[in-house]
Amino acid sequence: MTNNELTVHPLDQAVALKALDQGRWQGTTSQAYANMVGPFGGTTGATLLQGVLSHEELLGEPVSLTVNFAAPVADGNFEVVARPLRTNRNSQHWWAEMVQDGQVVAFATVVTARRRDTWEQTEAAFPDVPLASDLPIFSKKSVPPWTRNYDMRFVDGELMEAPDQDHPSRSRVWMRDQPPRPLDYVSLSALCDAFFPRIYVRRPKLVPIGTVSLTTYFHTNGEQLASAGTEHVLGIARANHFGKGFFDQSAEVWSRAGGLLATTHQVVYFKE
Amino acid sequence: MTNNELTVHPLDQAVALKALDQGRWQGTTSQAYANMVGPFGGTTGATLLQGVLSHEELLGEPVSLTVNFAAPVADGNFEVVARPLRTNRNSQHWWAEMVQDGQVVAFATVVTARRRDTWEQTEAAFPDVPLASDLPIFSKKSVPPWTRNYDMRFVDGELMEAPDQDHPSRSRVWMRDQPPRPLDYVSLSALCDAFFPRIYVRRPKLVPIGTVSLTTYFHTNGEQLASAGTEHVLGIARANHFGKGFFDQSAEVWSRAGGLLATTHQVVYFKE
Repeated sequence: MTNNELTVHPLDQAVALKALDQGRWQGTTSQAYANMVGPFGGTTGATLLQGVLSHEELLGEPVSLTVNFAAPVADGNFEVVARPLRTNRNSQHWWAEMVQDGQVVAFATVVTARRRDTWEQTEAAFPDVPLASDLPIFSKKSVPPWTRNYDMRFVDGELMEAPDQDHPSRSRVWMRDQPPRPLDYVSLSALCDAFFPRIYVRRPKLVPIGTVSLTTYFHTNGEQLASAGTEHVLGIARANHFGKGFFDQSAEVWSRAGGLLATTHQVVYFKE
Repeated sequence: MTNNELTVHPLDQAVALKALDQGRWQGTTSQAYANMVGPFGGTTGATLLQGVLSHEELLGEPVSLTVNFAAPVADGNFEVVARPLRTNRNSQHWWAEMVQDGQVVAFATVVTARRRDTWEQTEAAFPDVPLASDLPIFSKKSVPPWTRNYDMRFVDGELMEAPDQDHPSRSRVWMRDQPPRPLDYVSLSALCDAFFPRIYVRRPKLVPIGTVSLTTYFHTNGEQLASAGTEHVLGIARANHFGKGFFDQSAEVWSRAGGLLATTHQVVYFKE
């Protein structure tokens, strides 16, 4: 056994939960995943999902996750509470919340299900893009700490550059945890929030932003997810509309082998 | 005053709530919006939103709505409970649930906000399609009762037909309430669930299906919404992936004048 094998991955540290009671845990925000203010939302959502996945009454695997960012998460300790709202024969609806000082700062609803083999068809198309290994690693200096936990390689749509005329808010980016970590639902849920805000791609001007609500649909079972290993995944994100203080984002996340792992959507507050 | 002005629109009947207590109401499912089993999900979601919009502590207008369909809704009475989970200066996070026999059958989380004028840009493109007035009204016989409350006019992607080669699960359809009713958040939220299941477009075979979770992002304020009046709106829906018992749907809803009113996403269970 080497030292490396003894080291807990930074993501697993960030989402670590210590049981307090049935369906109640304590966690601590991670400096490694610090954002401009408070922690990276991807780890907040992943921590709420981690609560559900740790619950002893869990049935099946995640199908859908919606995370609402209700208030700024303060650096330090928090509690996570998760409980099944409804358990059916093959599916379950969950509530999970993150609490600081007796106040809800973030919450999630999750659907889990026993997934079965059915007819299968992907309609979205995997694009013709260079391999991750042929692209430079994103390494802008003035970006928040959490980005250093991801190896990102942009095909196009990088931050604060002249937008593409045909796809002004679109980014196509290979991503993986840094250091590499085998893909699972927790890390995939965080990756789904690792796209830079579309407004910084579409309009290279720094304004305050914050994700308000984030929904992810998982399209694979755990076994398929595990087979992606530590390879990069390809994320493709775009906005549909900016206006009246909010914009949306829709994205697909693909395995290197061309399997659609997740589709993910969010609505984001912006100023001006 | 004519008799017509005294008549309550069927949608308003379906979502009508009688106050029981602060943040608690009673409602009744509407036979006019019956689906194959239980009521049309669009009215279930609209009723939960109606609870939030009726709450005396409401701040602002809807930005985001996620509805989870936890169990079949039985025909008859239900209770709706809504409560603010977190109130910020300009935004609010809500919980709403529908209860029958002491059990949660559906629930929603809602974000409302005071929306302000900001930079505005629509990136999704309004397509070149015929006007609603130039298209026949959809009138298949073997469809559930709720469809008769909508005037639908398909540009393409009708139900149970040979799928389009390039866009096999896509539908483009003009829709409005029937009888016509001025557009508001409640009716728009129901319209966002009025797309036929993508699997019936992509694969013309009748199998059991059920929406599990539905998320809608509203891109207009109430004033802009009201200006759409009783005109048809154009819905464009497609699936990204079908497999392991679930598929997703992403859709845009446009005003006749070409304004993007909402983007909406759902994940749907299917058998086989």
